[in-house]
Amino acid sequence: MKYEDLGFCKVDYDREERTGYPEIIYGEGKSADHIKQIMAKLLEKHGKALATRVSAEKAEFLIEAFPHGVYHPDSNIFRIGQTETSLNGKLLIVSAGTSDLPVAEEVQLTAEWMGCDTETIQDVGVAGLDRLLSHKEQLQTASVLVVVAGMEGALPSVIGGLVKRPVIAVPTSVGYGAHLQGLTPLLSMLTSCASGVSVVNIDNGFGAASQASLILKLANEGADT
Amino acid sequence: MKYEDLGFCKVDYDREERTGYPEIIYGEGKSADHIKQIMAKLLEKHGKALATRVSAEKAEFLIEAFPHGVYHPDSNIFRIGQTETSLNGKLLIVSAGTSDLPVAEEVQLTAEWMGCDTETIQDVGVAGLDRLLSHKEQLQTASVLVVVAGMEGALPSVIGGLVKRPVIAVPTSVGYGAHLQGLTPLLSMLTSCASGVSVVNIDNGFGAASQASLILKLANEGADT
Amino acid sequence: MKYEDLGFCKVDYDREERTGYPEIIYGEGKSADHIKQIMAKLLEKHGKALATRVSAEKAEFLIEAFPHGVYHPDSNIFRIGQTETSLNGKLLIVSAGTSDLPVAEEVQLTAEWMGCDTETIQDVGVAGLDRLLSHKEQLQTASVLVVVAGMEGALPSVIGGLVKRPVIAVPTSVGYGAHLQGLTPLLSMLTSCASGVSVVNIDNGFGAASQASLILKLANEGADT
Amino acid sequence: MKYEDLGFCKVDYDREERTGYPEIIYGEGKSADHIKQIMAKLLEKHGKALATRVSAEKAEFLIEAFPHGVYHPDSNIFRIGQTETSLNGKLLIVSAGTSDLPVAEEVQLTAEWMGCDTETIQDVGVAGLDRLLSHKEQLQTASVLVVVAGMEGALPSVIGGLVKRPVIAVPTSVGYGAHLQGLTPLLSMLTSCASGVSVVNIDNGFGAASQASLILKLANEGADT
Amino acid sequence: MKYEDLGFCKVDYDREERTGYPEIIYGEGKSADHIKQIMAKLLEKHGKALATRVSAEKAEFLIEAFPHGVYHPDSNIFRIGQTETSLNGKLLIVSAGTSDLPVAEEVQLTAEWMGCDTETIQDVGVAGLDRLLSHKEQLQTASVLVVVAGMEGALPSVIGGLVKRPVIAVPTSVGYGAHLQGLTPLLSMLTSCASGVSVVNIDNGFGAASQASLILKLANEGADT
Amino acid sequence: MKYEDLGFCKVDYDREERTGYPEIIYGEGKSADHIKQIMAKLLEKHGKALATRVSAEKAEFLIEAFPHGVYHPDSNIFRIGQTETSLNGKLLIVSAGTSDLPVAEEVQLTAEWMGCDTETIQDVGVAGLDRLLSHKEQLQTASVLVVVAGMEGALPSVIGGLVKRPVIAVPTSVGYGAHLQGLTPLLSMLTSCASGVSVVNIDNGFGAASQASLILKLANEGADT
Amino acid sequence: MKYEDLGFCKVDYDREERTGYPEIIYGEGKSADHIKQIMAKLLEKHGKALATRVSAEKAEFLIEAFPHGVYHPDSNIFRIGQTETSLNGKLLIVSAGTSDLPVAEEVQLTAEWMGCDTETIQDVGVAGLDRLLSHKEQLQTASVLVVVAGMEGALPSVIGGLVKRPVIAVPTSVGYGAHLQGLTPLLSMLTSCASGVSVVNIDNGFGAASQASLILKLANEGADT
Amino acid sequence: MKYEDLGFCKVDYDREERTGYPEIIYGEGKSADHIKQIMAKLLEKHGKALATRVSAEKAEFLIEAFPHGVYHPDSNIFRIGQTETSLNGKLLIVSAGTSDLPVAEEVQLTAEWMGCDTETIQDVGVAGLDRLLSHKEQLQTASVLVVVAGMEGALPSVIGGLVKRPVIAVPTSVGYGAHLQGLTPLLSMLTSCASGVSVVNIDNGFGAASQASLILKLANEGADT
Repeated sequence: MKYEDLGFCKVDYDREERTGYPEIIYGEGKSADHIKQIMAKLLEKHGKALATRVSAEKAEFLIEAFPHGVYHPDSNIFRIGQTETSLNGKLLIVSAGTSDLPVAEEVQLTAEWMGCDTETIQDVGVAGLDRLLSHKEQLQTASVLVVVAGMEGALPSVIGGLVKRPVIAVPTSVGYGAHLQGLTPLLSMLTSCASGVSVVNIDNGFGAASQASLILKLANEGADT
Repeated sequence: MKYEDLGFCKVDYDREERTGYPEIIYGEGKSADHIKQIMAKLLEKHGKALATRVSAEKAEFLIEAFPHGVYHPDSNIFRIGQTETSLNGKLLIVSAGTSDLPVAEEVQLTAEWMGCDTETIQDVGVAGLDRLLSHKEQLQTASVLVVVAGMEGALPSVIGGLVKRPVIAVPTSVGYGAHLQGLTPLLSMLTSCASGVSVVNIDNGFGAASQASLILKLANEGADT
Repeated sequence: MKYEDLGFCKVDYDREERTGYPEIIYGEGKSADHIKQIMAKLLEKHGKALATRVSAEKAEFLIEAFPHGVYHPDSNIFRIGQTETSLNGKLLIVSAGTSDLPVAEEVQLTAEWMGCDTETIQDVGVAGLDRLLSHKEQLQTASVLVVVAGMEGALPSVIGGLVKRPVIAVPTSVGYGAHLQGLTPLLSMLTSCASGVSVVNIDNGFGAASQASLILKLANEGADT
Repeated sequence: MKYEDLGFCKVDYDREERTGYPEIIYGEGKSADHIKQIMAKLLEKHGKALATRVSAEKAEFLIEAFPHGVYHPDSNIFRIGQTETSLNGKLLIVSAGTSDLPVAEEVQLTAEWMGCDTETIQDVGVAGLDRLLSHKEQLQTASVLVVVAGMEGALPSVIGGLVKRPVIAVPTSVGYGAHLQGLTPLLSMLTSCASGVSVVNIDNGFGAASQASLILKLANEGADT
Repeated sequence: MKYEDLGFCKVDYDREERTGYPEIIYGEGKSADHIKQIMAKLLEKHGKALATRVSAEKAEFLIEAFPHGVYHPDSNIFRIGQTETSLNGKLLIVSAGTSDLPVAEEVQLTAEWMGCDTETIQDVGVAGLDRLLSHKEQLQTASVLVVVAGMEGALPSVIGGLVKRPVIAVPTSVGYGAHLQGLTPLLSMLTSCASGVSVVNIDNGFGAASQASLILKLANEGADT
Repeated sequence: MKYEDLGFCKVDYDREERTGYPEIIYGEGKSADHIKQIMAKLLEKHGKALATRVSAEKAEFLIEAFPHGVYHPDSNIFRIGQTETSLNGKLLIVSAGTSDLPVAEEVQLTAEWMGCDTETIQDVGVAGLDRLLSHKEQLQTASVLVVVAGMEGALPSVIGGLVKRPVIAVPTSVGYGAHLQGLTPLLSMLTSCASGVSVVNIDNGFGAASQASLILKLANEGADT
Repeated sequence: MKYEDLGFCKVDYDREERTGYPEIIYGEGKSADHIKQIMAKLLEKHGKALATRVSAEKAEFLIEAFPHGVYHPDSNIFRIGQTETSLNGKLLIVSAGTSDLPVAEEVQLTAEWMGCDTETIQDVGVAGLDRLLSHKEQLQTASVLVVVAGMEGALPSVIGGLVKRPVIAVPTSVGYGAHLQGLTPLLSMLTSCASGVSVVNIDNGFGAASQASLILKLANEGADT
Repeated sequence: MKYEDLGFCKVDYDREERTGYPEIIYGEGKSADHIKQIMAKLLEKHGKALATRVSAEKAEFLIEAFPHGVYHPDSNIFRIGQTETSLNGKLLIVSAGTSDLPVAEEVQLTAEWMGCDTETIQDVGVAGLDRLLSHKEQLQTASVLVVVAGMEGALPSVIGGLVKRPVIAVPTSVGYGAHLQGLTPLLSMLTSCASGVSVVNIDNGFGAASQASLILKLANEGADT
């Protein structure tokens, strides 16, 4: 059975086979009960499950149903279990400011769940280069980098110019006025003067983690010709 | 010497060491003579050089200076030499429509120059799924995929749901009206319902090729822990 | 009497004669009492009535006045009665994700009220094509299709390429960041690479149902030359 | 053979079977020679062919290759042959101003090619209602209406309130300043206060014709339950 | 004394002399106490006062301070007294839908306070032309017209084509999705195909009333050469 | 006969009766020959005619057909004759900078043609208040004011605070960068802190002249109650 | 030690040395406890501290920890101590309307904390020039001017044309509709027809104060060659 | 005489007295002859003159009239003479890429004309930090900095974090796609995480030079209290 129809949704059992990772539940706009039903099915199939954008209220309901699950209130992630064998290589998550931490945590929790080893560097915005440059070696020895930044979104350009590994940039909605709820760092990252930088949606820590995990997985499995 | 100052610009000799690939010349807004001077320096240092967004007129000037260079008028790329040892793994470049071919060619020529083996699938827009699905195996055995699409930019979402390798999406400026010179497929790719998709700027074939090459390079060199 | 002036509004009794269906009440920005007064008049004239965008509080007030009415809290529709003779042909409502269901329900409840037979397919977003393709026959035997999608809005393009009947696309406000409250799928649907697709406003399930019903009505009454 | 691969493109022979009409060539961004090659294949298969957005220069080249083709310089359409059996019902094309005529012609030529009987009403913008209302009967006896308007795009709302048949609105890029190259009428048509109106992309006469033809076809073939 | 400095603001006593009408208080973003202080000064000087955008809470506070004032909760206007001698001529306020009434009321209350005779026509949106056309004579005998509309904002274009007096268009924030909080009718009114229409800001009933009153005043005082 | 159908357009003979002024030809997007045909009809009916946005090439063609017409190359207006009896009152046209002159001329030529006496003040942008204030009396004795400004569009706000007559603001497309082809002064004029200001489309000198003429006409004919 | 790593953030002790002023805490999106920890560190190092965008709730928490701090509820600033030696020269803060006062206060409190002497002029919007011009001498004797304005943002242009000292413009989010939450005055200030005006982000009083203080500091320390 | 009226414009002789520098001619949208007339008047008054945005054709005309003038074709500046006494302090102009040079030259030529000593650093975009950091001392000893950048506009943030003098940021229109003709770096600079940065319009080298010169002038004349 490739998927199961629960009426209100179709649980995609085949996704891991097809795309490398099981379906992850996007919690926004789903009722707590719907999340629970999907999660139960995914748990049964994969032995682990993860939901993003879960509000505190929904989390309370879920924790009763799945007492071994853990809720992370900053990043609104509800997580049960994780991939057992961990991948070689280091996923480095760099964030520009203190206010970008919830998104950085979404990257970290998702990537760990997918089997990645992660490290984090926090609060190294470009207005204080010393803080960033004191981590130069750590930056240059990572296998993949996810760079999280709000405001003007300059950090991925600077880091992209320092490393020879892929950089995935995540703009955040942290800012005001001309920041346009994150559109400005999004557009700015897309026009980065550094090559080797690709971009995901505003606050999309999950998406960056997925992309980074697929890259690490490829590096572990090797590229055939 | 990490860089050389030509007055009007600073040639970044250290870039290969730092970021994995030599500096590539962005030809727009530079005079033919400036391109020539930079190219001469880069050739001397790296034995190969590549310039993007070179108009036909500028190319004529360059071909006189560098008779062994080749100009590709569809993608406006001027290329001399390329990386000798080729990387394991296959970079698959998929384009949605005939009009997206120039950008797809920019991906291909850049990636080859960086040492990648490339394959291409053309004209498989989502309005005719059969054309796409008949390439299913080719899609699923690629190491990295670059997906080029204009119009509504739906192709990366569909492909992202079919493969377990990283997908880099390139929106193109092909379209009219609500297409907004490529902003619509750009935004649409960023909100893709498929995970594992990251995005580069409109028509930025060069950027997608760089990111893809870095991924293949990592896969070839292996990820250390 | 073509319309009746209630002071704060003019009830358009002639609308059914002119446009095929009685006036439907747009509940947003009207007081519960105003909705009640208009509804009473329309009921008297047509024997059935429908109001969209009715909040739970207003619905409580209305249910007291019209105990035979039914309130649908997901889609915020308040409905009394419906067209008796049902139209030949099948209106198929397809939605991309679980979060698009409220809009899909607005389409369904409105279309039924207008005399259409409806069927629904849920949660068949393009990131899992198998789910969609397993419904291929159902898609290809529908008379008219309404396709509801948030995120990048790719579903109507894919379906438009599979069927020979008119497709009406409804973008939804489900998404975040670059999704721009639904503007992105709206624009993306308008630039669809599939022909035979037309588009209505974001979350406008009512509008899609009206258009689809008019099409079915024409098909039932036949086109004169 | 469902499609044929010409290298630079895949000609979709199956499209008529799947979507009701043969592939139509979008001429923008394709070379004259590419258009010619695709057209030859489509002609061979279907006995008729149509290309939109063909510049005068490309048309000159095509007319040599296909002397029985006709080029329409206002709407930039190159057309060879058309569907033989014509559909019952009348497709009425209404345009708001003289400057909207090229788009109206794109609708007409495409729809005729698809087998529709068309009628046109021209220059009946809402600033002179008498002109429009003198055509009231013609409006109300049409089977499907395509309404083409630039400027503020008010015409579809007015017509949508007068007829009981589906209205497809086409915004045009005719205007200046706050008209935003057609975005303003596009958005305005999408928020129309009349129900039963759906919208296609700016200047997309071809899309409106396709949708209208599918509707007429359904009306001719009847809707099964 | 041309103005008085209250510290937090400067009350502009000279405004009536200079611009035809006393200063009117914009209540948004001012504390109830600040409004009270300014209002007391203006009352003392002019014998009448008007504040717009006054919330219910602030109004409660003001009504205690000025028991002869009247608060209009739909339009959020707090009004004390009005110009005694009324102007010749009729200001006709036309609104498209029931939800536009609050803005129409802001026009009416402000214009009356400025000495205008007003009449209103309500709920005559263009989707039901009969309702509008049955008021044709009333429209054509008005001296000045203010037309209030949300949604696609088509009403001023239609009315502008029916009358020989100035039309002032007021877009409202009533709508959703592509309506963009009123930007769409604003832009649409600005590109009206009818001449003789000028436009004020979204929901700016006060501004339309001011402009209309100045026009009537000129008509009463006569234009000198 | 209220209008005459020329096939490609309907000449609206009734417009003067209905809206105060004869139809004016919008030259953009019409062929020279079409303009000629419409102009001939309007001349025959009204003894005068005016076309806006006429290119130099089209003007050459028109001048041959109508040797008594005059072409104004700065404002692209082609004008034949004008209203004989001139209206009492003064229409004052104020422009902010030298580059706004073509739009100011469009206002002037149109308003004269409609029977207005005009005066102009040029180059009085707000960065040099002395220049503006030295015209204070002239400003304050005008009957109606049209204020033309590009850049940040501040002039109408300043003038609106100095006069007691209606001000019609015309933003122009003169500027660059953040000026957004005139959108910035348009939006800025709409949010003017001065009351009594209404706005027309970018570069729409014709619209401002029409509105101003209707106001003067009302002032001449008097406002009935 | 150039910075100290608190885990969730890196306190930048070196900032004063590098950029002229100590780090200032941006309170939005930080927990009260995080603010407290950073503030304690900065106090220890610099003997003074300032946090912007501190909500009333967070302020209550902070006042307990730092009883000698002062909270300013209008501008949401929490301030402890200030620079002792005050700079020569006068920083003049001019605001257009009463609703702009909170931002003006953010400028004032920040600049004082940085050692500036400030003066303020309030409520001198351009719709009442007399109010502004009565302060002409005060304007012309200031060393640096910060001009705060919402609505159409015209005030900096007018002031920029009156003074020979640098003007820093701050758009505010005060307004509605076409004001676009401050984007309109932002864009309008950027296209100012007065030279010598530069602009900071919407509501960014802190940024304007920083720039103005750096200018005064330079003027106090003198410019070396 | 504060200004002289040339009919088409008013030459503002008083500007130097009022704002510190003589009027500068904005050449765009003015005829060569108009520029010549204004320039002659300004030369007579001030002994020097400067025009920006002068096309090559207009320059040819001007050079005949003013043989001692110099035309700079990259930055389109026509300059005659310059301020004699030069200001103490150094204005440092830093540009991110080779394509930003024309704007950097506009800054330089304008500032020199205003009496500033300038230095330039070129091609130090953030993707190669070494190039920038090797100029650290030069950056930190400048009195005022103008930073010119296209693409993502990150350079001013990085420099703002390195220096204690005012930074004026100039976004350029160099870029493509998501760069939005310079809007992206403009918005990005406005949301800079570095304080002490203010911004001027896209490509507005003249504006940045004016602001910088006023700052240097203040530093030379000293700030009075």
